[in-house]
Amino acid sequence: MSCCHHYHPDPGCDAAFAVDVSAITFGRGCMRELGPQAHRLGLRRVAVFTDPRVRELPPMRGALASLAAAGIGFEVFDEVRIEPTDRSFAAAIAFAREARVDGYVSVGGGSVIDTAKAANLYATHPAAFDTYVNAPVGAGQPVPGPLRPHIACPTTSGTGSECTGIAIFDDLSLHAKTGIASRRLRLDLALIDPDWTRHLPRMVLACSAFDVLSHALESLTARPHTRRPHEPGAERPLSQGANPWSDMGCARSLELLGKYMLRAIDDAADDEAREQVMWASTLAGIAFGNSGVHLPHGMAYAVAGNVRDYRPPDYPRTEPMVPHGMSVILNAPAVFAETASTSPQRHLDGARWLGADVAEAAEADAGEIVGTRLIELMQAAGLPQGLAGLGYAASDIGRLTEGAAVQRRLLDNAPVAVDDALLNHLFSQSLCY
Amino acid sequence: MSCCHHYHPDPGCDAAFAVDVSAITFGRGCMRELGPQAHRLGLRRVAVFTDPRVRELPPMRGALASLAAAGIGFEVFDEVRIEPTDRSFAAAIAFAREARVDGYVSVGGGSVIDTAKAANLYATHPAAFDTYVNAPVGAGQPVPGPLRPHIACPTTSGTGSECTGIAIFDDLSLHAKTGIASRRLRLDLALIDPDWTRHLPRMVLACSAFDVLSHALESLTARPHTRRPHEPGAERPLSQGANPWSDMGCARSLELLGKYMLRAIDDAADDEAREQVMWASTLAGIAFGNSGVHLPHGMAYAVAGNVRDYRPPDYPRTEPMVPHGMSVILNAPAVFAETASTSPQRHLDGARWLGADVAEAAEADAGEIVGTRLIELMQAAGLPQGLAGLGYAASDIGRLTEGAAVQRRLLDNAPVAVDDALLNHLFSQSLCY
Repeated sequence: MSCCHHYHPDPGCDAAFAVDVSAITFGRGCMRELGPQAHRLGLRRVAVFTDPRVRELPPMRGALASLAAAGIGFEVFDEVRIEPTDRSFAAAIAFAREARVDGYVSVGGGSVIDTAKAANLYATHPAAFDTYVNAPVGAGQPVPGPLRPHIACPTTSGTGSECTGIAIFDDLSLHAKTGIASRRLRLDLALIDPDWTRHLPRMVLACSAFDVLSHALESLTARPHTRRPHEPGAERPLSQGANPWSDMGCARSLELLGKYMLRAIDDAADDEAREQVMWASTLAGIAFGNSGVHLPHGMAYAVAGNVRDYRPPDYPRTEPMVPHGMSVILNAPAVFAETASTSPQRHLDGARWLGADVAEAAEADAGEIVGTRLIELMQAAGLPQGLAGLGYAASDIGRLTEGAAVQRRLLDNAPVAVDDALLNHLFSQSLCY
Repeated sequence: MSCCHHYHPDPGCDAAFAVDVSAITFGRGCMRELGPQAHRLGLRRVAVFTDPRVRELPPMRGALASLAAAGIGFEVFDEVRIEPTDRSFAAAIAFAREARVDGYVSVGGGSVIDTAKAANLYATHPAAFDTYVNAPVGAGQPVPGPLRPHIACPTTSGTGSECTGIAIFDDLSLHAKTGIASRRLRLDLALIDPDWTRHLPRMVLACSAFDVLSHALESLTARPHTRRPHEPGAERPLSQGANPWSDMGCARSLELLGKYMLRAIDDAADDEAREQVMWASTLAGIAFGNSGVHLPHGMAYAVAGNVRDYRPPDYPRTEPMVPHGMSVILNAPAVFAETASTSPQRHLDGARWLGADVAEAAEADAGEIVGTRLIELMQAAGLPQGLAGLGYAASDIGRLTEGAAVQRRLLDNAPVAVDDALLNHLFSQSLCY
């Protein structure tokens, strides 16, 4: 990929980009290092956040035993809600304030890691909840100082939360996803242990792999950093746009997914494939943590937030929900058909890394080729073939557009200008592939 | 490159690896962010380290003006010695102790950045000089706590020091290079501004580009992390061995060098090529900062330390010296011929990224192919064609081997077992290509 020719600074835009990566340890069994690593960070007593399902899985015992062996006291909060809300964050924050700990450990997927980030933030720098929440939903105040150390042990190969300074939640009064974004929320260490992913059911693995895929493809095709308006000396946003650093991780991540994701979905015992998808997730997390995602994620929040009665296979049958990765990828073929003209070669590269034959492809066909390849992968994984599969109809499109239109942080990072008419069009195209 | 098949943990060895990257901002003109970035780190008064040549270059004025405009006081130490010694470090440390600053800025190449690291270390945690120096030369004590913030502005495209926790110097009494290695020495931020490299003379650019090339090729071919003996829970050394993270940066760095390094050497006005070599240097620095280099660097210290009367073109004609990148790359063809059998595909990949035609190549030819390509590049750049070009003869090999044999940190990171007989052989092979 010839990245350099993609970046010509526009006047008044940003000629530079930031590289900012949280510390990571990756490898089979590395969860057992939790105790020594926490000790090295100077921790003596930690709050361990997890969810009720992960609490019962075998690796959790290893993590807690490792803390105990290192002489580190802990208290466990196992009531994290999958797809957390302002209310579930509040319960975790109350726990953290009571717990009097000097650090945090999160063991779980993105919901757990994000909940621990929020608990750490408000226990360390107490404030009314809306203080640090992204504007315009919240006051968007900067976090006033460093947080306490936080070690994450991700148990899914999708979230990317271990690589970002973002915590996402549902605002129950607004029926919308929003979040808190600050470099201060970045972790001190992620222990990424592929052994965990043996415990992921098929559809959970599939949805998290599609989340990874979309992290990488959105990051690769985001508005170039050189087209983001920028005041000299101003701090760069976390969503700074596509740049040569994120490009490198996206490319490798997509190559690995093209080779391993269907194998990993189909066979929980295929350790090699599941490990490589976990590594792809890490690389995509580092990449989009440095560039930002755009339309498929912005639209996903509306898709997840307006669900009526869809219940996915392999997830707990408590209430209707759309897994995050599914809500993202169902928009993706329509989005990339729209954005392909802004960087056809990048869209063709993405399709090729994911396994499409692009030998004879013309640039004008890039959108169709990448969309077709995504739909093939979704079919192979057993995902619904469009938003209609979740119960959405044409009459829902106004509501979906309304929900997506407020995600300006994400929409502004798209390579095309996004208005309600475009969102309407994209949701219509996403109903049925 | 099929990285995953390269990593099978040996019993008692390390199944995991660490990813630990210092914050970086990269782009034309980003040096002008120095003031606002220092302000963001909470600095009010800094010590600025540089050398007498860089002090006079135009971008230095921009850096100091940026500090002044942000209201940050500074005091300049411009007496950094190129290829610093324990004595030159001592002068810098004395300055830092007197200066009463809350942070450090280094503007220069690796010698300047390393000197500022040492000054920061001993001013923040005063101790006898040998306390933190790598054993067996020094006591190798761990650094007891965090250092003061340090922002580097590298002016060469080679050092990689802005990405590592290492500071290298000549021990004058031992006639040997040694150093200090600690994660605590890592920078808080590197502002990497390709505009600086317009000021690099031809041979200076060439030597730093070959240093980058060897960082990438050594990192790619180092002993795999899965073959490094490891106690569960123990801290990983900075030289943890080749791993999938460093592999990715090495591959991209070598591709960029293959495409741009000769253009950058031949034409100081070729901004695109010089920018891409600077980016390749950053990627290789991140990679080897995470994996470690091996034989060519270990041997280089002896080559530089025993020089009698060689004076390179384009460098100040004060005393005999071998530029670091030159002292490294002259050993490289012999080394990679020796190591090729440990990972022939990686050696072939490296040669291909650097521009060799490997379409018909057999794995058995990997060593010769990569060596030949390196020699072609050295010829094109106008470097000596072996150690004889620096004035070394067969009678010097004993002394060179003695100087290299003490670099255990580097030699142990090689993919082959290294003893004096092997070093003798490699130096003999390096005399004349």
